[in-house]
Amino acid sequence: MSGAIGHLLVLGGARSGKSRFAQGRAEILTGELVYLATAQAFDDEMRERIALHRVDRGPRWSTVEAPLELAEAITSYSTPETVVLVDCLTLWASNLLLAERDTAAATEGLVHAVLSARGPVILVANEVGLGIVPDNALARRFRDVAGKINQEVARAVDSAIFIAAGLPISLK
Amino acid sequence: MSGAIGHLLVLGGARSGKSRFAQGRAEILTGELVYLATAQAFDDEMRERIALHRVDRGPRWSTVEAPLELAEAITSYSTPETVVLVDCLTLWASNLLLAERDTAAATEGLVHAVLSARGPVILVANEVGLGIVPDNALARRFRDVAGKINQEVARAVDSAIFIAAGLPISLK
Amino acid sequence: MSGAIGHLLVLGGARSGKSRFAQGRAEILTGELVYLATAQAFDDEMRERIALHRVDRGPRWSTVEAPLELAEAITSYSTPETVVLVDCLTLWASNLLLAERDTAAATEGLVHAVLSARGPVILVANEVGLGIVPDNALARRFRDVAGKINQEVARAVDSAIFIAAGLPISLK
Repeated sequence: MSGAIGHLLVLGGARSGKSRFAQGRAEILTGELVYLATAQAFDDEMRERIALHRVDRGPRWSTVEAPLELAEAITSYSTPETVVLVDCLTLWASNLLLAERDTAAATEGLVHAVLSARGPVILVANEVGLGIVPDNALARRFRDVAGKINQEVARAVDSAIFIAAGLPISLK
Repeated sequence: MSGAIGHLLVLGGARSGKSRFAQGRAEILTGELVYLATAQAFDDEMRERIALHRVDRGPRWSTVEAPLELAEAITSYSTPETVVLVDCLTLWASNLLLAERDTAAATEGLVHAVLSARGPVILVANEVGLGIVPDNALARRFRDVAGKINQEVARAVDSAIFIAAGLPISLK
Repeated sequence: MSGAIGHLLVLGGARSGKSRFAQGRAEILTGELVYLATAQAFDDEMRERIALHRVDRGPRWSTVEAPLELAEAITSYSTPETVVLVDCLTLWASNLLLAERDTAAATEGLVHAVLSARGPVILVANEVGLGIVPDNALARRFRDVAGKINQEVARAVDSAIFIAAGLPISLK
């Protein structure tokens, strides 16, 4: 049994410590720990980063890759004895755009999967809208989609936390 | 009468839900709702975005365009029976720079207009300084001006809120 | 004597008012005020900015340049009668990268110097990870290093504050 904790969104910048924070939150719960990775290794930089993160998490975790079919993965892996960690929604947004998926429908499906999950779901996301407006239209569209996903998921979860320099600020 | 609420700054990233939050705050007040839009439609992307937002706001709102003469618009439209929403200060900063206005004088004028307003003023602004330093000098200058405006307005208002993923953090 | 205050990290965006906030915090303490500047003036834009900031701080401050040997400077200048302000860690990160230093070792040295300081140390840092992923690999590496430094320092200090529009949010 994973306990009384509900679903949690952990939001933060790049290298803010959000993934580590989310993992720490998952690890204080009992039950199986399933890491749903949305990252896809397109180049050596990404491959190295992914491998490093997997080593960092340690042996308590099993890792499942879900670059696109995230709602389905949550539905498949969530059980009353399992904690599911999704890392992260922003790479998923990027994957959806590259695969030319309907992002609104995918977001709706994700929210439905989280609300129907049988155990706690912890979701990690980047905040990417706090810099200068990007030059190119695709980056602006990505920023819009990522921000929209964050808002929809924030509405669905029980708690949301913003991380800066590894430290939490409660949003909800 | 718009009630005892004072002036409010709503700060957040792109697609953070800051405009919607600010509108929600305005709509719980009684009185006329005036939306002072600083956006200028230079291309189809912007035109589409503006039209969409106008439909989103619904019929309770009247919309006034004030891309540059924002202080004057606040002074003209603020009455004890009116809630004025300015959306947003960051586009206004951009407009001032493009029009080669004196941004310091304009900011001073804005703060004076807010402090002299006869009803509540809600101002929306982007935080744009939390990404990597921009490559070009104009973007850096924009970032400086936008940040300065945010600080000056934050000092003048009664309350300030930071929005992430649609959720508020109280700043003041 | 500088009083019972411990070490403080002030985190924020560009033009968020973080330096001014940090200076204000230093100035309410008694003792000598030492400003450890990590900025290096490579061009006129930077030179102008640095000179302006020095005038802003006023005569109570003495300024020491420490673009690279920051740990050593903290160790040299910190006394029970001195408040040391480091402004800022993010330019230091940039300097380390340009000088091809070992950033992990330098960060460890910095944290050690802060923890061993004989008076309060106030450190200013930029959060740079809340925009779109930068196009080039060097900027991504910079973002990683800056974020890592922020996390390590945040762990070491007694208090940490996030600044937006000049207003503080307590992180720790």
